[in-house]
Amino acid sequence: MVKHMKAPIIAINYKAYYPYSFGKHAIRIAEAAIKVWEETGARIILAPPFTELRAIVKTVSDTPIKVFAQHADPIKPGAHTGFIPLEGLKDTGIHGVIINHSEHRLKLADINWLIHRAHEIDLEVLVCADVPETGAAAAVLAPDYVAVEPPELIGTGISVSKAKPEIITGSVNLIRRVNEKVTILTGAGISRGEDVEAAIKLGTSGVLVASAIVKSENPYHVIRDMAISGLRALQG
Amino acid sequence: MVKHMKAPIIAINYKAYYPYSFGKHAIRIAEAAIKVWEETGARIILAPPFTELRAIVKTVSDTPIKVFAQHADPIKPGAHTGFIPLEGLKDTGIHGVIINHSEHRLKLADINWLIHRAHEIDLEVLVCADVPETGAAAAVLAPDYVAVEPPELIGTGISVSKAKPEIITGSVNLIRRVNEKVTILTGAGISRGEDVEAAIKLGTSGVLVASAIVKSENPYHVIRDMAISGLRALQG
Amino acid sequence: MVKHMKAPIIAINYKAYYPYSFGKHAIRIAEAAIKVWEETGARIILAPPFTELRAIVKTVSDTPIKVFAQHADPIKPGAHTGFIPLEGLKDTGIHGVIINHSEHRLKLADINWLIHRAHEIDLEVLVCADVPETGAAAAVLAPDYVAVEPPELIGTGISVSKAKPEIITGSVNLIRRVNEKVTILTGAGISRGEDVEAAIKLGTSGVLVASAIVKSENPYHVIRDMAISGLRALQG
Amino acid sequence: MVKHMKAPIIAINYKAYYPYSFGKHAIRIAEAAIKVWEETGARIILAPPFTELRAIVKTVSDTPIKVFAQHADPIKPGAHTGFIPLEGLKDTGIHGVIINHSEHRLKLADINWLIHRAHEIDLEVLVCADVPETGAAAAVLAPDYVAVEPPELIGTGISVSKAKPEIITGSVNLIRRVNEKVTILTGAGISRGEDVEAAIKLGTSGVLVASAIVKSENPYHVIRDMAISGLRALQG
Repeated sequence: MVKHMKAPIIAINYKAYYPYSFGKHAIRIAEAAIKVWEETGARIILAPPFTELRAIVKTVSDTPIKVFAQHADPIKPGAHTGFIPLEGLKDTGIHGVIINHSEHRLKLADINWLIHRAHEIDLEVLVCADVPETGAAAAVLAPDYVAVEPPELIGTGISVSKAKPEIITGSVNLIRRVNEKVTILTGAGISRGEDVEAAIKLGTSGVLVASAIVKSENPYHVIRDMAISGLRALQG
Repeated sequence: MVKHMKAPIIAINYKAYYPYSFGKHAIRIAEAAIKVWEETGARIILAPPFTELRAIVKTVSDTPIKVFAQHADPIKPGAHTGFIPLEGLKDTGIHGVIINHSEHRLKLADINWLIHRAHEIDLEVLVCADVPETGAAAAVLAPDYVAVEPPELIGTGISVSKAKPEIITGSVNLIRRVNEKVTILTGAGISRGEDVEAAIKLGTSGVLVASAIVKSENPYHVIRDMAISGLRALQG
Repeated sequence: MVKHMKAPIIAINYKAYYPYSFGKHAIRIAEAAIKVWEETGARIILAPPFTELRAIVKTVSDTPIKVFAQHADPIKPGAHTGFIPLEGLKDTGIHGVIINHSEHRLKLADINWLIHRAHEIDLEVLVCADVPETGAAAAVLAPDYVAVEPPELIGTGISVSKAKPEIITGSVNLIRRVNEKVTILTGAGISRGEDVEAAIKLGTSGVLVASAIVKSENPYHVIRDMAISGLRALQG
Repeated sequence: MVKHMKAPIIAINYKAYYPYSFGKHAIRIAEAAIKVWEETGARIILAPPFTELRAIVKTVSDTPIKVFAQHADPIKPGAHTGFIPLEGLKDTGIHGVIINHSEHRLKLADINWLIHRAHEIDLEVLVCADVPETGAAAAVLAPDYVAVEPPELIGTGISVSKAKPEIITGSVNLIRRVNEKVTILTGAGISRGEDVEAAIKLGTSGVLVASAIVKSENPYHVIRDMAISGLRALQG
């Protein structure tokens, strides 16, 4: 493994593609991530569906790759059929949770509650937001990561870093006014290394990416391209 | 009418009590509010149910009393059965909307969307929040008012200003770090003039109150007591 | 007014079009409905937004035209900010409620609760359903009307009675197996008299219609065309 | 294993108790179920949280014990962060899904959609309902099981079969009018063998049970008591 002072963050949201996000397909993506981490030192986060959390945690257990749930329900453990409290997610061995994704928006009060409760049990929290303003509002609540993703570009292959660079610079500016520490990511339409490079040059620490990796015939190549481009941007 | 340089804000949330919040009962509260305004100059906001908006707007039309909707749906005008867009609410003659009440929480992205859209069509926005942190997060989005109300005290008659003064001072501190202009209110368990007085002394501009007025046998007396105590706090 | 043994039902869902569904526009549609009723005896139901209920009730007060709310919240009166209980809707003078429209779907348990509660306070209930099977499931709960509307045709101008007549005949068959009394309506894409005529010939008592009337330059002409065609189908 | 012509159904809803519903605790309940099945031939269904589905499927793989998810999201596979489509659940090896539990109610249209889609991919569906009427409405949609559970008794330890036997007989009557084949279960407050015995004598095929087993110090004893009492009722 090549060590880097700084390395780009690549957070991979598996979403709910079938069969890509499930079973052996889910593990194959994790194995590709391990290989890229070994070669580049990229900081990778994997967010598979709830059903795959234990298998992915096991797959990456000897690496610094982190596993996040895609969502967390704002409930305490108890009589909640079909919901999973943070304690139950933590029990799978994961390191954190994504919350408030544009496909799973949460109420403001619940975002706050989840951040507090997650931190109490040593889980990291990555909050998604749709525009710089809501990114800053989320940042006030002191999560570990904020990822600003314009919903209109999600899944389009048109990357935010090219199509709307002002969303990224605006996010960095607004978020930094209220929170100096939170790690800032961006996403939506990220599909190539150059999108990651642009995102980092605009002031983020990395990207949140989904279909470009999860539905790829060769996830290893895509993750590697993104990792190398991200490193280049950080060193440049 | 007595004029005051500064006057306390008393925002009256009618909620959905029956029969108190509806019909002639709703109008009776508005008439009590007019009388108190005439006598004290208090800044009063009335938030009746959707069905009563036009009648209450008509009742207070010759006064500076404002009428707010209790909620707004995050939709554009169109094919939305059983929902009302901001444009439709505006059409009733109201001045603003309450959003994100603890009994009607909204998603973070929708709070932001509603604030922007409301301002475009000249409606004010009062955002409720459950704790100082979410109050500050909401304040980042630049609404006109933020009201912090601990849900556990709502409807109890145990006032936030007595039971949890630190919620109020904490809210003022956190909110002012991110927004210098927003009007800060508080609420939950407000039932007497002394609760209003305490709330104002702790740094707010007034209160959000519901059952203590709406279900009262004599709304005029309760509103008047709150207005006079609020004035005393502002002048003291 | 011409009296008819049987008359077609034309239920007009105002939805939330702006400005059409609000204020003077909303009243103009009610006045057109009155004129058509006077000329044809058609059984008309008007479903304006919550904010317009009192004005429309007043407009049609001397006629058998019924006013329905577009939705009802499954709550008892009380501390529910931004929601309206059935008792509050009833207070406006309305005759019934539409529930479970495809743009405002409800949980099965709530549909049942609302039907029972509405009947206790003498409000009629019109339940919408998307396919014959859910129409029959709803009919088991003994509402007054069931309207089957394939969502994919709503707002298209392609009428269910022409494009999917099997939905209508299937609905009538399935619903009649479990409920002999409920009034069966259909909707989606209804825009002309001939659509109403076809719907009635296929076994329904009438239609649920929205944009074709509400956004029309001449609502009177459209309602009249539908009423006359419906009468023809019933007499033919 | 003792073979029985007929055997009672014991469906165990793990809910989201911590630590009981997760990890080794979840497996321990499955092992207890296997032992009871070996001894009594009871037909057992296990419904653990999403995160535990694969482990429980593996644990019971050599037995006729069925594994169900506690809920299913009404979505097709695709870009749905934090949701799981039926295809993804099926991929874990489960046999069916519980839907519309009182702690996770669904819209009527979604219940219908899920039943159809589940059957297309060979998953069974157990629909919960709160009262006999909604049980019958659900039965119209042709699921495999309907479980009527009065929400006010869930988690109380006061069993429906003792406190409200009329709910059970009423459910059986209403459901059989519209569906001759669906398997009828009941639940709420079931905590002992005698509750199961009563439920079966009142006309059901078994029970849906949660905390009495999941939070028990000795799940084996509780399941065994229920299985034996259920067998006695069937043979008596």
